[in-house]
Order: sequence, then C-alpha cells, then structure tokens
Amino acid sequence: MTVLDRFADLYKRELLTNIIPFWQEHAVDTEQGGYFTCLNRDGSVFDTDKFTWLQGRQVWTFSMLYNLVSQKPEWLDMALHGADFLEKHGRAPDGSWYFSTTRSGKPLVQPYNIFSDCFATMGFGQLYKATNTDRHADIAKTTFHQILDRRHQPKRGWDKSVAGTRPLKNFALPMILCNLSLELEHLLDASLVSGLIDECIHEVMEVFYDESLGLIRENVAPDGSVVDSFEGRHLNPGHAIEAMWFIMDLGQRLNRPALIEKAKELTLQHLEYGWDKTHGGIFYFLDSKGYPSQHLEWDQKLWWVHVETLVALLKGYYFTKDERCLTWFQKVHDYTFNHFRDAEYGEWFGYLNRQGEVLLPLKGGKWKGCFHIPRALYQCWQVLEKIEASALAPNSYTA
Amino acid sequence: MTVLDRFADLYKRELLTNIIPFWQEHAVDTEQGGYFTCLNRDGSVFDTDKFTWLQGRQVWTFSMLYNLVSQKPEWLDMALHGADFLEKHGRAPDGSWYFSTTRSGKPLVQPYNIFSDCFATMGFGQLYKATNTDRHADIAKTTFHQILDRRHQPKRGWDKSVAGTRPLKNFALPMILCNLSLELEHLLDASLVSGLIDECIHEVMEVFYDESLGLIRENVAPDGSVVDSFEGRHLNPGHAIEAMWFIMDLGQRLNRPALIEKAKELTLQHLEYGWDKTHGGIFYFLDSKGYPSQHLEWDQKLWWVHVETLVALLKGYYFTKDERCLTWFQKVHDYTFNHFRDAEYGEWFGYLNRQGEVLLPLKGGKWKGCFHIPRALYQCWQVLEKIEASALAPNSYTA
Repeated sequence: MTVLDRFADLYKRELLTNIIPFWQEHAVDTEQGGYFTCLNRDGSVFDTDKFTWLQGRQVWTFSMLYNLVSQKPEWLDMALHGADFLEKHGRAPDGSWYFSTTRSGKPLVQPYNIFSDCFATMGFGQLYKATNTDRHADIAKTTFHQILDRRHQPKRGWDKSVAGTRPLKNFALPMILCNLSLELEHLLDASLVSGLIDECIHEVMEVFYDESLGLIRENVAPDGSVVDSFEGRHLNPGHAIEAMWFIMDLGQRLNRPALIEKAKELTLQHLEYGWDKTHGGIFYFLDSKGYPSQHLEWDQKLWWVHVETLVALLKGYYFTKDERCLTWFQKVHDYTFNHFRDAEYGEWFGYLNRQGEVLLPLKGGKWKGCFHIPRALYQCWQVLEKIEASALAPNSYTA
Repeated sequence: MTVLDRFADLYKRELLTNIIPFWQEHAVDTEQGGYFTCLNRDGSVFDTDKFTWLQGRQVWTFSMLYNLVSQKPEWLDMALHGADFLEKHGRAPDGSWYFSTTRSGKPLVQPYNIFSDCFATMGFGQLYKATNTDRHADIAKTTFHQILDRRHQPKRGWDKSVAGTRPLKNFALPMILCNLSLELEHLLDASLVSGLIDECIHEVMEVFYDESLGLIRENVAPDGSVVDSFEGRHLNPGHAIEAMWFIMDLGQRLNRPALIEKAKELTLQHLEYGWDKTHGGIFYFLDSKGYPSQHLEWDQKLWWVHVETLVALLKGYYFTKDERCLTWFQKVHDYTFNHFRDAEYGEWFGYLNRQGEVLLPLKGGKWKGCFHIPRALYQCWQVLEKIEASALAPNSYTA
C-alpha cells in the first residue's frame, strides 16, 4: 500500500462515513420538505430558511453520489426530497429562481442572484441522470437557457451601478459556465456546448487572467482591460483555483495538454500569492495593488477555498506530474484536515479567522451546505485512485 | 487640575492637533473637487471614488467645528469644498443622492441607500448655520423631506425581499432621525420636529428595544414583534449605544430625566452584553440567541463603535452621576486609545480583528471618513468640560 493509496482511502472514508451521514441525519425537513442547511456544530437546526443555492447543490451532491458511487436508494430519495421542494416553491412566475424561501416555501428573497439558477440547473441536470424523468430534464434545460439569456445583465433590476459610468464584468459566471456546460452536456445541443466551452475558456484564461499580474481578476472592463477601483483590484485566489480544475477537466476533454499545463501553473501562482506566510491557509480576498480590501473578511480562511485547492493540486499533479503540486498538496491537506475538520461532532467547520481558529461554529448556514466538501472529497478520491492505478506516483514522495 | 480635566484636554488636543489636521492635509482633491476618503496609513490616497456618506459627513464635521469651536476660515473653506462637489454632482434627476461618484463626479452607484440622503442633509443643514446661504438651506430641507417621504420604503426598487412574506423594519432610520431632527431643527417647522422626536423616541425605546432581552434589535416586524430569522436576531451593540446618546440629548431638551436614565441603563446593558470578555473591545455584531451571525466580520472591533460608546458613557455620567459610567469610560477609553490610535502616522485605525490587531491599515475608506472620531472627540471634550465646571466629578475617581 503506497502513501497515495492511503490518501485515497482517507478521502473516500471522510466522504462516506463522516460528511454524507451528517447531512443525512440533520438536513432533512421531513415536515415541510427540502433541506435545513443552517446547522450548529452538533447538527441541530438554528434557522429554517431555505436557500436555493444550497437546496440545488445538495440535490446535485446526492444525485452525483447515486450516479457515480453507488445506486443507494436513500441517496436518490434525498436528492428527490430537495428537488420536489424546489420544483414546488423555488421559481418566480417568470421561471427564475428565488434566492430563498421560508421553511414552508413562501418566497422570501427575489431572484436577484443568477447563481440560484446555476445551482438549480446543476441539481436537476444531475438528478435527471438518475431518474430519467423528463420533468427534471425540462427544468434543467429551461433554467440553463434562462441563464444564457440573462448572463449579460445577471443582476437585472437589482444592479446598483449606474449604467455606462464604469461597466464591469464578473469572473464568476464564465467560471461556473465552464463547469455547467459539462454538467449539462447530456441535455444540450453539442454545438451549443462546444461554443460555450470555447468562449468560457477564452474568458477565464485570457480575459480575466491578467498576464502582467500573473493572476485572475474578479472584475474587468467589458473589453478585458484593468479597472483601478475596489472591484477592479479585487482578487479571490480560491475562486481562481477552483476555476483551474474546471479548466483542467475541459483540457482533458478537448485533449489540450497546453491548456492543462497553463491551468496547473496558474493554480500554483495563485496558491503562492494567496498563501498566508504567517499563519498558514489561503486568504479569502486580496487587492491586486496590496491596498486595503473593502471586504472585512479578507483575511479569513474558508473551507471551500481550501478543498477546491486540494482538487486542483491533485488534478494538476495527475495531468502534468509537476512535483510542486504534491508538495503543495501535502501542505494544504495538512492545514485543511487539521483546522476545518471537527473530530468531535463530525463534518467540518466552514469559517476560521486568520489564525486558524474557528470563527463561526456552524456546520452549515446561508452559504455553506452539502456541496464543496463532498464534491472535493469525491474528486480527490477519484484522482488519487487514478494516480495509484497509473502507478505514476513518484517513489520519492512520502506523506 | 483634576483627572477629568486632563481627559478634557486630551480629547480636545486629539481632535485639534491630530485628527483634523490629518484630513486637512490628505483629503482635499484640489483638482476635481470634493474629498478623498480612501487613505492609507500615511494619508496617501489609494482610491479616488467619492462616497456621498463621507462627503456629506465631512461637510458636517468642518461646518460644526466652524460653528461651535472657532470660526476659522480654513474650516469653512473645507466644508464648502465638499458641499460644492455634492451640489454639482451628488444628486440624481429626482433629487435623491447617489451612493457614490467617480473622482470627477460621474454617478457610479445609484441612490439605493437612504443614508446618503441623511448625511447630505446633515452636512448642508450644518453648513447653512455657517454660511446663511439660502441654497444650502434649500438643499438640506428638500432632502430632509424626501427622506421622510421615502422612509417606509427606504430601499426603493433595490429591495431584494419579496413583499409580504416577512416584512421587517430597520432600526437605523428612526435612530438617525433622532439626531437629524435636532440637527435640522433650525430649518423645519416646530410641529414637524416635535412630532418626529416623539415618534423616534417611541420607536427606539419601545419598539426596537426588546424588554425581555434587555437589548435593542436591529430589525423587527412592522408591529414591533420579534422575528426569529438572521435579520430578526441581529444585534449591533455599537449602533444601539450611539442611539442612546442621541436619546440623552433629546431627554435633556425635553426635560425628561426618566428617559435619560433609561438611555443610560441601556448603554450599560449593551456594553456589558457586547464587551468581549476574552480580548477586550466591543463586538461588532451578535445574535440574540447566540447563534452564528451571517456576518463574517461579527467579532471585529470597529472604531465608530468604541468612540460612540465613549460619548454615551460620558453623557450618561454627566446626566445621572452613575459611577458605573465612569468605570466603563476608563476601560473603553484605555482600549480605544491603545488600539485604534496610530501614534506613528497620526489619525486612527478603523478596523481591528478580535484580538485587537490592525485588520486594515487604512485611515479612511468607503465607510470610514472624517466624522465619527472628530464628532465623538468634540462631544467628549464638551461633556468633560461641563462635568469639570459643575464640579461634580467624584473625588474617588482616579484615572
């Protein structure tokens, strides 16, 4: 048994015996449908509002496990439990998705946020692979096309900026479309998928990537030029790194090793830039000129940033055999498992302060649900097994 | 010279020889008008956007100094410098105030935020006392009436909540109207002022104050009842304490000692509740049930929270002679001067982490400008002199 094999087993066990059972035990609203996501350290529910991001993401996670790991009926039931709630209560009359509802499904926050739609379509698209139910496919497809229609004005009437003064476009949408276009490939025209993929790769790797800075900006002018403002200087290393493993997946699919190589390099560049040399961990936000961020949470260490980085590093290593990926993987793995994992009550903390201490004792909330950790653990487990199978793990690597 | 006399002198000197000269030296945009507020530790400008909150507040501060401290021409010039910019560039066609503009005054962020209007009217109202220029009075009055017209739908079309599901009203507006109605008294009908004052005192002290909790909630249902949601559980101790000195001022004006007594008690209750027993300082946000806040910055220590508390404690002591106010004053004074004050480059830091270390090295930004510190230093200085003059400082009190 090699060292990497032990990692594969660790990630698999963490997913299947810690994370997933926690959400099965605590997240189901048996009375009013959907999932509770606001969970205290011990899993008890502290708020019953239902957030479309997290409902859609949990539908996706359990559907994905059913489709890719094992056809356990309870996993499909869990996915359907959230999907039914979303189907009944999630959409405004125009078909766009509310940001949140009350426990019983009354609309609470308007469909101002296009990512509600993104995670709904992602959930239903993955669910359809499990159910083959046309209704699920229809919801996924309709929503996806609505996203495309809306993508150049994603905030709709809720946009507070004055049109024309300082137009900006944001990285999140092309970045997530890189992933969504593969997620929904089974439901879309091949030409649409291929056009979208080309466009998104271009946006991520050439428009938002600032060559002279060596980093991806969260916001640029419509023509891709740099804007020297709070938004224009804003950097989100974890977001960029997450995008890099989406790009590596696309690079594999398109058989473009140079693209994979570039995505691996950018992963390392963002990690070196974003790593906190004093306390360890990856900063949440930075300013490209080193100026004060407008975000008070800039120095905190967030769960999703770290687990997405683990995926990008393992994929980077798997595809390119760059040893620096393994060195970084060990370092980020140690930080992540030592600081986020809650050995006492199960699941992981989501929010640490700069020093690595728990900032909020929650296991789930308005933004943290059953998604990044299980997806990343699954991805890491799979890549680790492939590395093992291809027997390419360098002998010199010791954990 | 008594101990309290030394405090009076300290606060006066800090205001007149540290804070005010810093903004005079660094904040003036001599080329394009208005004030720079995004200032690095050393006062150099890191961003040139102009935020109406901070433009209006700095107009107010320099007008107030001119009106109440000394008729220095350079103070009036400074106030006029910002007022001219606001007058030229600050308003949308309907007369409401943009949230921000570019350096040259092009509108950048829509008038979504009613507090832009509040700080504009506050600035022009105070400026009018210095200039007697009708135009300044007109802007203040017109804006104030627009605020009243808009106050039951302060977010206008930018409100993201779905009407009817969970209506909430927010503490900030009645709280600031307590202060604004006195600020603008010279420009308003006496009956309007007196009606507003009664209404705001009722809202602050009876509707938002939750008797069973002993604390003021930031958001309640329209009928004043408690709403068990993230917003309904949200507490902001510094905000409540700031309101308490507005209430004490109103209590003095209305000759209602019981109201002052209650405001002093609430000041102490919020301070005992909000004080960080581990690291010192006052938490930014708390949850009324002790659940995780949705605000990642909840445990940070902010400048305005601490200086507003100093004012409330001194007024509380001055009006009621409650010794607990002095004990707390000494403690909060020590924390504030030791942690926020920048002995090296002048002015004060605004944002500390929970441990009291500097989180952002800025002296000014999108929210911190020339307002809370000078206003609080002035208020403390004045109250300390009155305490001294009335010779009511207890002999037992030692710094």
